[in-house]
Amino acid sequence: MYKSYLAASEFIDMTKIPGPKAASIVKEFKKIAYDSTFTYPLVIKTGSGCVIEDVDGNKFLDFTSNIGSCPLGYSHPEILGIIKDYCSTKNGVHKMAGQDFYCEEHIKIGKRLLSISKKNSKVFFINSGAEAVENAIKLAYKKIGPLPGVSCMGDFHGRTLGALSFTMSKKVQKTNFPELPVKRIKFCTADSDPQINQLESLLREHKVAFILTETIQGEGGLNVASKLFIQNIRKLADKFKVPLIFDEVQSGMGRTGKWWAYEHYGVEPDIMSVAKALQVGATVYDKEYEPDESGVLSSTWGGGDRIDMAVGTKIIEIIVNDGLLSNSQRIGNMLLKNFVDIIGIKGLIDVRGIGLMIGLEFDTKTVRDYVVNRLFKKGLLVLPAGIKSIRIMPPLIINEEEAAKGISLICDTINRYHK
Amino acid sequence: MYKSYLAASEFIDMTKIPGPKAASIVKEFKKIAYDSTFTYPLVIKTGSGCVIEDVDGNKFLDFTSNIGSCPLGYSHPEILGIIKDYCSTKNGVHKMAGQDFYCEEHIKIGKRLLSISKKNSKVFFINSGAEAVENAIKLAYKKIGPLPGVSCMGDFHGRTLGALSFTMSKKVQKTNFPELPVKRIKFCTADSDPQINQLESLLREHKVAFILTETIQGEGGLNVASKLFIQNIRKLADKFKVPLIFDEVQSGMGRTGKWWAYEHYGVEPDIMSVAKALQVGATVYDKEYEPDESGVLSSTWGGGDRIDMAVGTKIIEIIVNDGLLSNSQRIGNMLLKNFVDIIGIKGLIDVRGIGLMIGLEFDTKTVRDYVVNRLFKKGLLVLPAGIKSIRIMPPLIINEEEAAKGISLICDTINRYHK
Repeated sequence: MYKSYLAASEFIDMTKIPGPKAASIVKEFKKIAYDSTFTYPLVIKTGSGCVIEDVDGNKFLDFTSNIGSCPLGYSHPEILGIIKDYCSTKNGVHKMAGQDFYCEEHIKIGKRLLSISKKNSKVFFINSGAEAVENAIKLAYKKIGPLPGVSCMGDFHGRTLGALSFTMSKKVQKTNFPELPVKRIKFCTADSDPQINQLESLLREHKVAFILTETIQGEGGLNVASKLFIQNIRKLADKFKVPLIFDEVQSGMGRTGKWWAYEHYGVEPDIMSVAKALQVGATVYDKEYEPDESGVLSSTWGGGDRIDMAVGTKIIEIIVNDGLLSNSQRIGNMLLKNFVDIIGIKGLIDVRGIGLMIGLEFDTKTVRDYVVNRLFKKGLLVLPAGIKSIRIMPPLIINEEEAAKGISLICDTINRYHK
Repeated sequence: MYKSYLAASEFIDMTKIPGPKAASIVKEFKKIAYDSTFTYPLVIKTGSGCVIEDVDGNKFLDFTSNIGSCPLGYSHPEILGIIKDYCSTKNGVHKMAGQDFYCEEHIKIGKRLLSISKKNSKVFFINSGAEAVENAIKLAYKKIGPLPGVSCMGDFHGRTLGALSFTMSKKVQKTNFPELPVKRIKFCTADSDPQINQLESLLREHKVAFILTETIQGEGGLNVASKLFIQNIRKLADKFKVPLIFDEVQSGMGRTGKWWAYEHYGVEPDIMSVAKALQVGATVYDKEYEPDESGVLSSTWGGGDRIDMAVGTKIIEIIVNDGLLSNSQRIGNMLLKNFVDIIGIKGLIDVRGIGLMIGLEFDTKTVRDYVVNRLFKKGLLVLPAGIKSIRIMPPLIINEEEAAKGISLICDTINRYHK
């Protein structure tokens, strides 16, 4: 059984959750704006290290990294330094037409990103993860033509209508929206899955423009693909000459203890999409997918916020210099081991993940929702994933003590659940 | 005839265009990144007022506003003040999950934007203009279903595959990409156009999900819709109960001397898309289009860069406080009058526009390209639009003297062109 590292009360220092300011802001927000995918009434004010502070001064240990967008936690001195640097003359042109006018930040982030990517790649910068996927599939269509694309059940590739066509996570994300032509296959998490060769028969019967998948599904329930499944996809993509696109928007940039989740599978994509932890969106592609004319892809702000590009560049540097890939492996293993130890308790039916991208699956949505909301009240932020799983993605800078606090809060909360 | 306000040489203070640093950065960029829609080798370093400075210290009078993204020009003291403010503790969480966690910046920009928008609207924030259009059409689809959408020939609504389906500007933007179902009508610029009632017969024959158009096409050639055309669309949208979406990504936020270009037509949309000058993307919609469940629309960074949201809020404030709508009208009229005066000279066949969104159309692409590139060498930035037009969109803060300099440079350049 797990060891409780601390009394649950030890960490908590709150007024009331939500506090008066947060409650008022959330109320006002719902009047003027669409109520999107908010999990709980967290109104972020600032943060430091792995701790987010809300507008009422409540502090939360963050096991979400803003869905992976803040890999170095908050108020990292080197990141603050970059933003400060842009307060001087440099920020005279803060928001710019990054695909129409050039800037040095574009080169710097491009070089840094390519230094950790597949050899002989080029890059196209864009504004978001969805747009990184849109441009990945556009490169494939450009070369192959507007044929159907293949993606996996449970995949999440973004909400713009191109990317959304290949997303199949929750019904609410798709109902009533038109779709581009798509063929879906099962996302296999076990080498022994009888449907592991489903793609081969599909490719024999249909010409397709690309195969697009995650190797670790985040939004879809934190599902880890089987090694054989991904290796098989790579072989079939080669055999049928179909470009293989890996979506690394959530799983990339060191989240799993390697730069890209696909590295755990011993294969490489032809094209990949990156965003979140990089601060801007990027499509990295083999040179053979470069369109043979200019202007095929563009966007006014394609990577065009200079501060975001400079911060993204620095994030890669810090992950290298501070050995955060190995920290992700080390702390990830510690978390995984502790959670695996409590499988079977109070409806916790599975624990899985790689590095700092971990999922806990429960037998019902009810217990999952209870745990997420109870942890929020106790000062620990985790996110739901899929129908009845929890997604745990702390900043890559997390240390053992913080991990231990989180483990105790999670294990205690699950253990105290009364059906 | 026009009066030359200055010797063309008076304004120019350059080493060589492109200078050695710019040439080297552009060369390096092309090696690692896709050559997108760059018009000339401008490598932005900083800027002040209406002047951009490149990496070699060359200064350019900017008649582009970074395609409308920098409406207050560069290094505006109040904008620098906002960014400086975010160097303190506030920026501990710079990039955040803006549709999953709340923040005050979101409320502030939402309230400001709604204060200048159609009454009783709500807003959804997103990352780019393309994404603002994607979410506008998603709101229509959500209510009506995945029917075809109507848009106009020459429209530009963005490059993501949903928005791109309704874009019909240049072939290079669309070749080989799949499309969602679409019906296109002619974009009528004259009340006398015989096709002005094309939409009515289309709506009699087909059920559609929405009508999406610009009122002033930017990318498509700077074409100003006829008043009757837009008023007719509004009437037909009401008659056939089809949501009308105006795309104000380029023409909005005071560019035309009113907050939204549609105000020149005496009608209002049901949904509109905003971005560029706002610094973040936004979809503003009548409350009846609000989805009846949460989570239908989302995005990790939906308006989620706090600095961009705070800057966008301040931009609206400054446009109000500094009377920049009337400045846009006044200087726009001055520019228009001077350009109209030289119609007929050296292939300039038409001049059109409203406020600070002006197009000059030539008889050939050759003379247009000559003028754009020659002006760049002379230190004036203008953008191409459509096949053979120039797009002129200076910052809204432009004064008479700067306008006069630009007029002289443009008129002199056209006048000196030798076929």
